[in-house]
Amino acid sequence: MSSQIFSPGLQQALDLVGIFVFALSGGLLAVRKNMDIFGICVLAEATALGGGVMRDLVIGATPVAAFSDLGYFSTPLAAGLVVFFLHPQVERINTAVQTLDAAGLGLFCVAGTIKAHDYGLGFVPSVALGMLTAAGGGVVRDLLALEPPALLRWDREIYAVPALVGSTVVAALIAGNRLTPLNAGAAALSAFAIRMLALRYGWRAPRAWHRNDSRTSEE
Amino acid sequence: MSSQIFSPGLQQALDLVGIFVFALSGGLLAVRKNMDIFGICVLAEATALGGGVMRDLVIGATPVAAFSDLGYFSTPLAAGLVVFFLHPQVERINTAVQTLDAAGLGLFCVAGTIKAHDYGLGFVPSVALGMLTAAGGGVVRDLLALEPPALLRWDREIYAVPALVGSTVVAALIAGNRLTPLNAGAAALSAFAIRMLALRYGWRAPRAWHRNDSRTSEE
Amino acid sequence: MSSQIFSPGLQQALDLVGIFVFALSGGLLAVRKNMDIFGICVLAEATALGGGVMRDLVIGATPVAAFSDLGYFSTPLAAGLVVFFLHPQVERINTAVQTLDAAGLGLFCVAGTIKAHDYGLGFVPSVALGMLTAAGGGVVRDLLALEPPALLRWDREIYAVPALVGSTVVAALIAGNRLTPLNAGAAALSAFAIRMLALRYGWRAPRAWHRNDSRTSEE
Repeated sequence: MSSQIFSPGLQQALDLVGIFVFALSGGLLAVRKNMDIFGICVLAEATALGGGVMRDLVIGATPVAAFSDLGYFSTPLAAGLVVFFLHPQVERINTAVQTLDAAGLGLFCVAGTIKAHDYGLGFVPSVALGMLTAAGGGVVRDLLALEPPALLRWDREIYAVPALVGSTVVAALIAGNRLTPLNAGAAALSAFAIRMLALRYGWRAPRAWHRNDSRTSEE
Repeated sequence: MSSQIFSPGLQQALDLVGIFVFALSGGLLAVRKNMDIFGICVLAEATALGGGVMRDLVIGATPVAAFSDLGYFSTPLAAGLVVFFLHPQVERINTAVQTLDAAGLGLFCVAGTIKAHDYGLGFVPSVALGMLTAAGGGVVRDLLALEPPALLRWDREIYAVPALVGSTVVAALIAGNRLTPLNAGAAALSAFAIRMLALRYGWRAPRAWHRNDSRTSEE
Repeated sequence: MSSQIFSPGLQQALDLVGIFVFALSGGLLAVRKNMDIFGICVLAEATALGGGVMRDLVIGATPVAAFSDLGYFSTPLAAGLVVFFLHPQVERINTAVQTLDAAGLGLFCVAGTIKAHDYGLGFVPSVALGMLTAAGGGVVRDLLALEPPALLRWDREIYAVPALVGSTVVAALIAGNRLTPLNAGAAALSAFAIRMLALRYGWRAPRAWHRNDSRTSEE
């Protein structure tokens, strides 16, 4: 019943890097929305752990890992403090943050899919929970800040597609009984690469066909 | 431990119809909010399954049915694609969609109440969970779109009352040990009928007494 | 496996007082947002029980207490009706409501921390869940009303700090094997006192250092 595909030490390190970077994005939004230090830490926690918490609740893995592992819980607090003291510097390295966020996206969709399968879910639900793990925290972050969720906006580079690819590849590997640390890493890398290309070339997803522009509200 | 009151095939068909129609309302809101195809599918999923997921989490029925049954998960995706390609046509048959939504309301409040009772909850909590099953998805839909939840607005036709009636009738039937497919169907029909009458005659619920209009914010 | 520190009767009475007052704050916001009677009752329920429901879901205590105990569920409905009929009077005794809300904050952070520990969580997660129990309902209330969560706003008196102090004191008492009804009550009292002082003297938490005011959005 383990969602660890890499050696425990490596898996833990990768998880914490992903959590830290997701938390940075939450903290930065809190600063932009003029929140105080507690708002910064709450958004850091919610962004970093929200997706994993929702996955664990859905599959019934309680107490949820985010609250039973001290490292998972403490890392976003550290990220929150970094943003509190150094947010102009963090904003300035935004490209680096986006790159690490794409890495977190890849790692989380893979880890989420594997954990869902470990709890007995089938192919499609495991893919969906991998995507929820990767993208759910960002939705919670945006809602707490009363921002339209970036995941759902047509004018943002695609985020769901990379997660969908990474999760589907992993679910297919599991179905074919061929999951290894190496090709799990390749799945994470493919999600990472698609996200980076989307950012680089401004890839966006289509809106509904035959939109009657006069009737849709612009955001 | 079954919340099936009708024959499994009929129950499944009714569930999927309700899920499909709820998903249409989510997809249409996503189009109105200018979301891309992923936003449309996410809102379709959240609207159709949100209420049932919350009910299952509260009663501890994990992994939640929405993720362990492939039909439940795939139906909203199909509805999302229908909206993506055909949303002007779907908007045009809005009366039919509202009628089917009222039918979904009736079916979901009945099924939610029965499932809550199956998991050992008492009369009042079962009624509350029936209402949550029927109305929870719509609240999630509105929040994801940053719209004031229609359920809570005074200027929308009543939605909670039909669910309350349907759930209460079923809970009373269970308490009296008289639940049959026939009268469960009648309970769903009563919720459906009240909702349709509310839409037809513009029934609304009262706001607080002695409102000081100069102080309340208009929405 | 009991989170009761006081005698059952006293604990129950304290819980219900806290729930009732939290529910009043939810109902009053619903009136200000022009919601109907169902909106008032939904916000009363969500505010009063939201924090405890999230705690129970995270630790896996299902069916959650809020739905399996009739008193927990009925009390917010009673508060909603009080607000519906008497909201001008309730607004007028706002200072009393704020005082009782601070008392609820103290009681809930203590009870939440103890229950989390009872379910096997460690020091830091128990503190976090105590804070979630005390503050989570208010966040749900604000999101349902599409208001920026008061908990996260820099221009509101601190709410997280009192909960943090109360929860930390209780977790330390548990760690030192010294928890008694008397010093649990003292922990609740300390949270209550800090919150009251914060309201009296306008204590606020700092925003991020070196804020570049021209770039941050004012709320």
